[in-house]
Amino acid sequence: MRIGIYGYGNLGRGVECAVMQNPDAELVAVFTRRDPEKVKILTDTAKVEKAENVLAYKDKIDVLVICGGSATDLPVMTPELSKDFNVIDSFDTHARIPEHFNNVDKAAKENGNIALISAGWDPGMFSVNRLMASAILPEGKDYTFWGRGVSQGHSDAIRRIKGVIDARQYTCPVESAMEKVRNGENPVLSTREKHTRECYVVAKEGADLERIENEIKTMPNYFADYDTTVTFITKEELEKEHKGIPHGGSVIRTGVTGKDGENKEIIEYKLKLDSNPEFTASVILCYARAIYRMKQRGETGCKTVFDVAPRDMSAVPYEEMLAHML
Amino acid sequence: MRIGIYGYGNLGRGVECAVMQNPDAELVAVFTRRDPEKVKILTDTAKVEKAENVLAYKDKIDVLVICGGSATDLPVMTPELSKDFNVIDSFDTHARIPEHFNNVDKAAKENGNIALISAGWDPGMFSVNRLMASAILPEGKDYTFWGRGVSQGHSDAIRRIKGVIDARQYTCPVESAMEKVRNGENPVLSTREKHTRECYVVAKEGADLERIENEIKTMPNYFADYDTTVTFITKEELEKEHKGIPHGGSVIRTGVTGKDGENKEIIEYKLKLDSNPEFTASVILCYARAIYRMKQRGETGCKTVFDVAPRDMSAVPYEEMLAHML
Repeated sequence: MRIGIYGYGNLGRGVECAVMQNPDAELVAVFTRRDPEKVKILTDTAKVEKAENVLAYKDKIDVLVICGGSATDLPVMTPELSKDFNVIDSFDTHARIPEHFNNVDKAAKENGNIALISAGWDPGMFSVNRLMASAILPEGKDYTFWGRGVSQGHSDAIRRIKGVIDARQYTCPVESAMEKVRNGENPVLSTREKHTRECYVVAKEGADLERIENEIKTMPNYFADYDTTVTFITKEELEKEHKGIPHGGSVIRTGVTGKDGENKEIIEYKLKLDSNPEFTASVILCYARAIYRMKQRGETGCKTVFDVAPRDMSAVPYEEMLAHML
Repeated sequence: MRIGIYGYGNLGRGVECAVMQNPDAELVAVFTRRDPEKVKILTDTAKVEKAENVLAYKDKIDVLVICGGSATDLPVMTPELSKDFNVIDSFDTHARIPEHFNNVDKAAKENGNIALISAGWDPGMFSVNRLMASAILPEGKDYTFWGRGVSQGHSDAIRRIKGVIDARQYTCPVESAMEKVRNGENPVLSTREKHTRECYVVAKEGADLERIENEIKTMPNYFADYDTTVTFITKEELEKEHKGIPHGGSVIRTGVTGKDGENKEIIEYKLKLDSNPEFTASVILCYARAIYRMKQRGETGCKTVFDVAPRDMSAVPYEEMLAHML
């Protein structure tokens, strides 16, 4: 499986590392909007190319992994690139997924390509677990808790604000709410009651801090529905105290079974991650493998993690799965 | 989706309850080896029939759920019934899955039917999570811990021993081993170091207790590789102290990502179940839905949980999944 990486930030580097861990994958080229001469990659055998030269690789890449931001990059890049490549992205603006799906589906189908959007862990593995758990326990409630961890999408969103140099956003679960859920109390929780958001922001000298803080706190989809704290720090503090990009969280479904719903059943899927982008990249590589296979079976158009059988995510032969993993 | 239940013990009753929770499923008939007159079911609109009359329902049932024991029932029943029905079972003798798969695959394919074996939570949801987690983190180790809970398969195996009236087997995780895994210590653990097995057995008056205990402790696949304790109790004690059939456990994968494997990532899938058979039945119903749909798309032969896309497990329309669950 010949892989291309389009965009070489934290996620792109994570995809490169994931390729190195999977013998059935090979990195062909990295495409960047920066000067290729100045982009150092880890893979000797792969090229670094200008993003605008991507079409020259049309027949040299089986799956192109698009590593752009969800706010402005992916809504344009993924439909456009799916005209010429099989593509995968990690689009994570939940509210805009149906719209993104339709745009990518049209472009991919018209050109006989396959695409998969919103791969990663949320959206991604958490979504798969939400879906499976609610299918298994139709009478129940589900809960998703994130953190404490850095959200790349939310940090990016802050960075796009005028006057901001850099930022880290931590998503923090409200512990007391999580306890109630694990005890099977089925609490009704608003968005605000489940998580808080902590923002550490490096601003340009002389920037209007009050405006920046206000723009963050009122940003729709990202911050408006949460109790958000904004702390301005120096670039040095950010480097020293907030260098890692850990994350994690839990998807929990509490449901009942039996004639009168007399038995309680609890399903939890939990992640504890040192590196959010590297884990996201590792998930993406599994789904890249899957769509590569689905394409070989003749499938085209836009897919999501919901469309993928576990079997297609793994490099293990089916007979070995039956003997050792089932 | 018209459902038949073949075998009406704990699992069969669980399937009936699961059908009641899923508006797209309808119970048509229960087939029993007992006298149908003496079997009371919960569904007024469903028939109770003798097992040998099952063929009369060939065109009235979309998926037949086979609720027999793995030791002797399913290896015969599932291949046989898959000649005339789309079938699903919860075959859980891990060591014999490849053989069972081949037998069912041949019978189902030759007759244009679809089958799914080994549905439930282990094998089943735990298998799906083992597979997905190891695909995501190829450099890592995985661990499955069960319990503390009653294993139906192991209890059944004890009940088949001559001189045994009834039995409950509890599978217990070794807590210290589980702690090491969750701390990311990657311990090497033998089967014996991970779990112990506690057996509570009601024997016939005058039965050779020493022989029974020995037959349990040396039973291959089931008990031979574990530290097993056998306690003989009265029927009254069993009724009073061991009435519930709780279970649960965790599938944990600890792996590394990054250029030099410098970041640790931990995935855990955890179940806490008041009723093992009802939860198993709830999983089975999701996979019954899936194979019903796969059959409509022209697929035949034997499948496993590895072949099923999450989408097919759920009654939720795809558009709604994209908007609310991804």
